[in-house]
Amino acid sequence: MTFNFDKIISRQGTNALAEDGYENYLFGASSAEPLNLPSGDLISMWVADMQFAAPDAAIDAVRKRLEHPIFGYTMNFDDQLYDAFGAWCERRYGWSFEREQMMVSLGVIPALFALVEYICNPGDKVLTLTPAYGYFKHAAVQQDRELVTSPMRECANGDYEIDFDDFERKVSDPSVKLFFLCHPHNPTGRVWTENELRKMAELCFANGVRIVSDEIHCDLTRSCVRHVPLAKLFPESQDIITCMAVSKTFNLAGMMVATVIIPDETLRTVWKSRNYPFINPLSLAAAVGAYQDGEAWLEELRVYLDSNFEFLRKELSAKLPLARFKVPEATYLAWVDLSAYFDSSINLTRFFLENAGVILEGGEMFVDNGAQRIRLNLASPTHQVQAALDKIRDAILNRADAGTTQTLMSA
Amino acid sequence: MTFNFDKIISRQGTNALAEDGYENYLFGASSAEPLNLPSGDLISMWVADMQFAAPDAAIDAVRKRLEHPIFGYTMNFDDQLYDAFGAWCERRYGWSFEREQMMVSLGVIPALFALVEYICNPGDKVLTLTPAYGYFKHAAVQQDRELVTSPMRECANGDYEIDFDDFERKVSDPSVKLFFLCHPHNPTGRVWTENELRKMAELCFANGVRIVSDEIHCDLTRSCVRHVPLAKLFPESQDIITCMAVSKTFNLAGMMVATVIIPDETLRTVWKSRNYPFINPLSLAAAVGAYQDGEAWLEELRVYLDSNFEFLRKELSAKLPLARFKVPEATYLAWVDLSAYFDSSINLTRFFLENAGVILEGGEMFVDNGAQRIRLNLASPTHQVQAALDKIRDAILNRADAGTTQTLMSA
Repeated sequence: MTFNFDKIISRQGTNALAEDGYENYLFGASSAEPLNLPSGDLISMWVADMQFAAPDAAIDAVRKRLEHPIFGYTMNFDDQLYDAFGAWCERRYGWSFEREQMMVSLGVIPALFALVEYICNPGDKVLTLTPAYGYFKHAAVQQDRELVTSPMRECANGDYEIDFDDFERKVSDPSVKLFFLCHPHNPTGRVWTENELRKMAELCFANGVRIVSDEIHCDLTRSCVRHVPLAKLFPESQDIITCMAVSKTFNLAGMMVATVIIPDETLRTVWKSRNYPFINPLSLAAAVGAYQDGEAWLEELRVYLDSNFEFLRKELSAKLPLARFKVPEATYLAWVDLSAYFDSSINLTRFFLENAGVILEGGEMFVDNGAQRIRLNLASPTHQVQAALDKIRDAILNRADAGTTQTLMSA
Repeated sequence: MTFNFDKIISRQGTNALAEDGYENYLFGASSAEPLNLPSGDLISMWVADMQFAAPDAAIDAVRKRLEHPIFGYTMNFDDQLYDAFGAWCERRYGWSFEREQMMVSLGVIPALFALVEYICNPGDKVLTLTPAYGYFKHAAVQQDRELVTSPMRECANGDYEIDFDDFERKVSDPSVKLFFLCHPHNPTGRVWTENELRKMAELCFANGVRIVSDEIHCDLTRSCVRHVPLAKLFPESQDIITCMAVSKTFNLAGMMVATVIIPDETLRTVWKSRNYPFINPLSLAAAVGAYQDGEAWLEELRVYLDSNFEFLRKELSAKLPLARFKVPEATYLAWVDLSAYFDSSINLTRFFLENAGVILEGGEMFVDNGAQRIRLNLASPTHQVQAALDKIRDAILNRADAGTTQTLMSA
């Protein structure tokens, strides 16, 4: 490999949420019960950024931009980002869009908040599939909008599927005006098939529901899996807004730059008149550099992630055989069903922090339908993943030895 | 001088609002009448960023941060910014505040929008002095809040003073819940005296009105002028929120980082639960570097700006003697009264763009009380300022020669 993903890089002293912000994020500012942390270093496997160095393609582009010493008010006026990102989409997904359709945002999360405000009136509802990333709910419920959920079904093999009967019932509520699609899906890692995408979209169109397709994980499919942007399937539609970003792909979440493709001119006018239009010139440079020259890095990263997932699969199967896990089609996030080891009364986030020294997100961090699951971020050096898994396994088995788990023994 | 402020630095190709965004910003997306631009290069003297290189103190700090290659989700967890900025405030203003009171924001404008939302209910009103920066209005009128204005009086010498009778009347409207103070004031350049500050604040307190003191220009006083943070005068008050930033001081507006000092714990809790908490790690580094090591640069900049203002004063007095102008106590913005040359029917922004090739902001860009004035950004190399002034003068005199101005001739 040309790039070294095995290197452990400490993030201490860098104000990283992954290391410094877990307590407040995961347990709230005023946790009722104080945390009982184990001795020794914690291993961070929670928030969706990577423990890998960003590609030089991005870093060198920032260095280059620093040679011009003025950093005043900046907006995405020229075509550099469009050219680089547009070519990326064309090359990787066979998808293209007009320059005028591409807005920039300070991230996908701010874009979700903005789009709810622009598309939905107070009293309107936003639909999403669950389990869902928590910010989908936060973005939906602002200012008297409501969230409606359509729970997915977990199959015996650990895969998730849409309950289309339920989806159709929910989407036909006349108050539902927007569907948040997460594609690929966080936390399950599903890459929706063309068939599933068409079916969801057509139900939305038939009910006058717009779609915001959050495709922030699209570049991180397993090597054998192909992502199809929803908007590619409906080139004439004005009702699909696509969000993509360098945040996950190139580990640049802190740079706060995302692209939002809005085909509908009226909505674009609202966006342009109401959305904070500035962008950090260094972030713009990083994004352009990454899309232009970061592809080789990404391809090696994907292979590395594939192998981390394969490693996890083997480890679980050997050492925690009752865990239900299927390698996800995309993302660097493993969604593991531990219902054989825990009943739903246990807060798994707290359990593994206190008993394994591993910071991860239990199902309670997601909107509905995630009980007894954990989400593990595998974007770490393999030996770090191994260390975390050993601690997770020990914590589960020690608990079983202590006789606190009925299900484990009887399974 | 150690630093070179005379160097012309082209901002072409850097997505600078100053050069690429003036048309949309100043005339709207759908200007009724197409602009009739003169041939040759335009000179940009409008948006409030500088045509000077940012200090190496900031740029080197970013370079240093780039040596750590991870740029994931970042928040201001540690004390680096507080230590650097707190020491800055202590040293320069004799003002200090607790670490826990310091929030970070993506800029002062986003902070104004957020604070209106957190402090005012729909139907509430926000008070400000006019003429006022346009974004004060935009921030105030969102979501059914209203703006109330208290027009300042222009004295014969070009200075501005508060009409305290009017202010008292306006602030005692029970719907007014917030006062936006701009200190130093944009566009007039007033640095409010302790007496004025106390009087405004006490009227606010007496009426249960909170104060957001936008002190973004505080570091840019004339060399002989001292800025006093409003909050320093009322150390026990919970009702003053202070906004400061590296944006203007060090020409880092594009970095999108500001500090917001909130003494009131309840309001801080709202801020923390609702405000987008992320910050670009490179911007954080730039801000820390600038506050730690940028002071020598700032002191030379201030001397340079002093001399640009003195140059402007002499030029106007020699060549446009009917222009009313007083060197402002702060900011790099000159507010020039051209009512002797123009009646209020003329859009001065358009006039000088079309007739002088100078991009500046006419009074119509501000909230009320700015007719027949122009705001000139003097943060440019002196010879650039000179070139712009020559063009401005020629445009005015050519117009007079053409017989379109009565006031000029009769003055």
